[in-house]
Order: sequence, then structure tokens, then C-alpha cells
Amino acid sequence: MNSPDSQWSFTAPLSAVPEAVNACLDQYFADSSKEFGSIGSEFGQAISYLKDFILLGGKRVRPMFAWAGIRAGLEGGGGSLSVPFPDATPNPKALLSAISALEFIQACALVHDDIIDKSDTRRGNPTTHRKFEEEHRQKGWLGSPEHYGISQAILTGDLALAWADDMLLDSGLGHKALHKLRAPWRAMRTEVIAGQILDVTLENTGSESVDDSLKVIEYKTASYTVARPLHIGAAMVGADPQVVDMLRRIGHDIGLVFQLRDDQLGVFGDPVVTGKPSGDDLRTGKRTALINLALHKGTESQVKKLRDALGVVHEEPEINDLRELIIATGAEETVEDYIRIHSQRAIDTLTAAGLSDAITSELVALTTKLNDRKF
Amino acid sequence: MNSPDSQWSFTAPLSAVPEAVNACLDQYFADSSKEFGSIGSEFGQAISYLKDFILLGGKRVRPMFAWAGIRAGLEGGGGSLSVPFPDATPNPKALLSAISALEFIQACALVHDDIIDKSDTRRGNPTTHRKFEEEHRQKGWLGSPEHYGISQAILTGDLALAWADDMLLDSGLGHKALHKLRAPWRAMRTEVIAGQILDVTLENTGSESVDDSLKVIEYKTASYTVARPLHIGAAMVGADPQVVDMLRRIGHDIGLVFQLRDDQLGVFGDPVVTGKPSGDDLRTGKRTALINLALHKGTESQVKKLRDALGVVHEEPEINDLRELIIATGAEETVEDYIRIHSQRAIDTLTAAGLSDAITSELVALTTKLNDRKF
Repeated sequence: MNSPDSQWSFTAPLSAVPEAVNACLDQYFADSSKEFGSIGSEFGQAISYLKDFILLGGKRVRPMFAWAGIRAGLEGGGGSLSVPFPDATPNPKALLSAISALEFIQACALVHDDIIDKSDTRRGNPTTHRKFEEEHRQKGWLGSPEHYGISQAILTGDLALAWADDMLLDSGLGHKALHKLRAPWRAMRTEVIAGQILDVTLENTGSESVDDSLKVIEYKTASYTVARPLHIGAAMVGADPQVVDMLRRIGHDIGLVFQLRDDQLGVFGDPVVTGKPSGDDLRTGKRTALINLALHKGTESQVKKLRDALGVVHEEPEINDLRELIIATGAEETVEDYIRIHSQRAIDTLTAAGLSDAITSELVALTTKLNDRKF
Repeated sequence: MNSPDSQWSFTAPLSAVPEAVNACLDQYFADSSKEFGSIGSEFGQAISYLKDFILLGGKRVRPMFAWAGIRAGLEGGGGSLSVPFPDATPNPKALLSAISALEFIQACALVHDDIIDKSDTRRGNPTTHRKFEEEHRQKGWLGSPEHYGISQAILTGDLALAWADDMLLDSGLGHKALHKLRAPWRAMRTEVIAGQILDVTLENTGSESVDDSLKVIEYKTASYTVARPLHIGAAMVGADPQVVDMLRRIGHDIGLVFQLRDDQLGVFGDPVVTGKPSGDDLRTGKRTALINLALHKGTESQVKKLRDALGVVHEEPEINDLRELIIATGAEETVEDYIRIHSQRAIDTLTAAGLSDAITSELVALTTKLNDRKF
């Protein structure tokens, strides 16, 4: 990996964010392993699983949107580099390091989510609790391998959440920038946890309400994945309030699109490309917005068939029958309509906002890419 | 509860900390519930369980030591009120709010620990995962009540960890104070998680090494509960490095004493006073330093008897036999020696340090109290 320090500049394109963020995270792990190396090998193992989890996958969507927020603020949004660096020479590395910290929050969310969802794989690899579980089994330790895996993965997720704040606060951002991003940073962390709590509750109450599933998307994805990262980035450079407001609005649209595409891929995605088992949401019976729409729109017999099969059938022929059933209810088409409408609304709002051509066209391209993605 | 703003001053005694911290936490919950109230009742339920957990118990040991660190810095330790408040009138409420944030870290640690230890009660009340589990059962929801309880308690603990940083950063401390406490705050969070990871590992490997159990005490208790809170408090007010160093040294001694007393109470404590079942550590078979010492010091037949019974026997007569067996090995007496020696060393170091009489005598009294406590 290249050193992020040497090449990163304030005009770096969104497409350059993932590699630069990876280099930053890699450096952070190297420094932290050194700092806490004396604690011992058991802790080193947890750090190493966390590092693998973070560095061996992920699209870096949240840092990309945060970088978009920074550039939107600087390129015609009233933002200024004097905000993050009141006492020092502007240093793009500090901004890069600050937005990389979002990946630690995401790591906590996913490691804990995988325990909650009892998932075996993530990004094509065993989930963190399964890795610990397997280590326990291989070494023939005492007690339950499953409970050991869950215990260590809870703690590994906690470490990621603590280090998210550490990486942000030690990024080199000045205190004015840190002060300005406080409110959206707090809101983002609270909202994603709230969204997960809501999601778990609805799964257990058996809610099939489309509104409920949209509310989960609102907190767990739209706000957390897109709107708040844009907000945080813009806040870091002291962007104008109306630009922050515009970014949050397009963030909610883009985030909704992002999650609805995920729902579609969870049913119709190609497992070779997604890295997840084909039709995973049908096997687990998860009530996504797509599924709830199908249950809402279907005929009585379609709904009965769907409800009886969700979470029950596992073989490909039956899974494929369910796919066709969902298409027949019209739900798949409705979701595509939602995706197109919200994607277009975000693009229209953005192009009318008067930012520079560079960040405008890059954000439009990113929105289109997320809308069209296959994984 | 009284408003903490009106009465709190820089010379407030350590004994006044718990009530003032409770008032501060109560206020923080009120403000946060307002801020995030629109998210919905499911999230409100999690906040309410977290609030009950934090406010209905706890000795506030960590804020007390942090306040001791602040006063030690100010009363002859080179500290100055100009550090936390470079741009504003000194405000004792900001310091109080900052040290109250330690209770959120403790809440995360305990809520997650209770999942890991499969504990049913904490501080005489049902543990958080059991509360969620019971709610699920009462409402007759879908799926496993146990897994629902664990899932929501993982997320509730995450919320506590996120809010710990929020409460600290929004406490009103100036940026210089926040900068100075960064390193010990980061170390404290990482060390407690590392200590828990080590603890879980050793439990599963079946380690009966006294050194291993002392290492867990070092990270999970001595550093986290006493040494780092003292360090953080002193750092907040910019205390002299040699005072910080002295406080960290006594912190490790006092912390060791604190945990060894806990180990004794886990075997010999009165359940009416401790709020935990009598001889709890014997029933769970946990390898504390006390137990490992007994296994190390006992005769062959004593060790065999102890090892066969730990985690297996549950009735009071057999539990009492085990207590007598542990006393017979000499382990109980050795632990009392450790407690006395380290307690005295902390007191000697402290009285030789040249701080004011007030904070010196209060810290000596607190050390003696923790050493002699019955719960």
C-alpha cells in the first residue's frame, strides 16, 4: 500500500478514497499493535481478527461520503480549511484519518450484527464469532466453543467502537473542527444503534409493516451510511448550513436507494458477485422492505405461499419459485421504482445546489453506481 | 436529587461524589431522552433499561478516584484550573460531568460481562439481557427469548460505550484539558477490554496460574478502576508528571486490593450485604487469584477435592465445606496479607507525596474503606 501522507490532497477524487483509507487503517493498526503489544498474545489475537475483518473487505462507502462532504464544503459550500487547522498548516492527512475512523464504527456494527443474526460468513469469510469459535474448537479448550466465540466477538466489537473515537480524536484535526463535528458524530452513533435495536425488536414482534421496515432503513442505513457521513465531512470544514442541509437531504435519498438495492440483491443477487449465499434473505425469512411490500401487495394465495415458505425453504428450486412469486406481486418493480425516483431526486437536488462541477459530477456518478451495483 | 450545578465546588469531598455523579447522570439521561425521543418507543425502552442499570446501583468508585486525581493535582500537585478552562470561567460542573462519563464505560463493561458470564442478577436486580428476555417472554414474541435478550443487551452496552465518549466530550471541558486526558482515556478503554478478552481466554483454557489471574486483575481492575481514573483526573487539570506517576503507582496497589477483596467476598461474603448469591465464585468455578492460590498452596488431596467441587456443588453445606477447605490451604490468609501489604504501601507512598492534608487523608480513608468493605 502507498503511504497516504505522500499523495493525498484536498481535491483527491472519491474513487481514491478506499485505497487511501485502507493505508490509513493499516497504519493505525500498526501503531496500536505497538502501543498495546505488551498486553499479551490473547489480546493480539483479537486485534488481528479485527484487522482482518476491516482490511479484507468493505466498500468504504461511509468514508467516501464523508470525503464528499468535505469536498462539497470546500468547493462552493462555504467551507474553509482554516476550520480544521486553526493552529497548523492544512494537512489533508488529518481529514483522511478522521474519516477512516468511520470504518471502526462499521466494524463494531457488523461484528455485533453477525452475532445477532447468527451469520456464518461475511464478505466471503467466516464471521468474527465463528473464527473465535473455530479457534476454541481446534485447541480443544474447555466450555462451549459457540459461547466463547460470541464472548470474544462482543469484546472485539467493543474495541472497534472505542478505537473509532480514538482514531477520530487523534487524527490531527484541530479542536474547532472536532467541536463542529461533535453533534453529527454523536447522532450517527446513536442512530445506528437505535436502528439496530428497532430492527431486532421488529424481527421478534414479527412486524410485516412496510412503514416499520422503512423506519429501520432510515436509522440503520440512510442516516448512518450516507446522510451523517456527508454531514460530518461538511461540518469538519465548517460548510454553510444550507449546504449541510442539502447534503443531509440527498443523503437520505441516496441511503434509501443503497438499502433498497441491498434488499433486492438479498433476494435476486448473484452469489458469486455478492459473496453471500443466493437468496439469503429468503432463507433467513428477514422482513425487508421488499418482502413486506410483497406481503402487502400480493393476492391472498401469494401471501400465504410466501409467508409459509420464508425462512423455511432452503433449496435453490424453491428459492427460485419464491423469487418469481415476489416478482409476480409487483413488489420487485415497486422497489425499482423507489430506487429510480429517490436516486433521481438526489441527483436533481445536487445539480441545483451550485457546488463545483467536480464534486457534483463525482457524487452523481457515485449515486448512479450505488443504484446499479451488483454487490 | 439536588442539581449538581448549584453546590459542586473544587474542594468537594470524595464522599460527596456518588450523589453528585448520580444527579449528573440523571440529567444526562433526561437530555438524551429528549434529544433522541423521536426515534421511538423500542429505543426508549433500551435507554430506560440502561438508565435503571446505571442509576439503581453502583459505588461510583471510578468517578471518586478521578475526582481524587483532580484534587490531588490541584492541592499541591502542580495542577491548575486554567488548563480545563482556557476560554471560560472555571466551572466545577464540567469536571463533574466529565468524570461521570466513566459510569457509562462501566455500564458497557458490566452489561456485556453479564452476557459473557451468563449472570442472572447484578446489584440485586435481573441483568439487562434477562430483562429483555423476560419482556420477550411476557409479550409472547417470535423466536428465542434468550437470543433476543442477548441481542438487545449487546446493543444497549454499545450505546453506553458511545455515550461515555459523548458525555466526556460534551462535558464543557476546554480543548486543552480534553487533549491532556486523551492518552489515559484511550489506554483505560483499551485496557479494560483487553483484560476482559484475557479473562475469557484464561477461563476457556482452564488456566490455574496465579500469575495469569494477577495479570487479569492488573488490566481489568487495577488499571481500569483506580490507576487510570486517578491519571485521567490529574491529567484534566495538568498535574505535574511526578504526581501523575505517584497516583498511577498507588492506583495499581489500591486496585489490586479492591479486586482481591472482591475475590474474598465472592467466596466468604454475606449475600445479604453483597447482593450476590453466597459463595458465587465457588458455584461458577471461576479461577480467581484466591482460588488459584488455594490450588497452588493446597495439599494433593485438598487440591483434588477443590478441583472436583468447583463449579459443581451448589448447596450451602457443600459450599461451606469448600470455604473451610480454602482457609485450610492458607490461601485466604495469603490474600489478606496481600491486601494489607499493598494497602499499606499505597498509604505510605501517598503520605510521603506532599499533597495537601485534605486530599491525602481522604484518599487514605477511601483506601482503608475499600480494603475493609463488606460488599
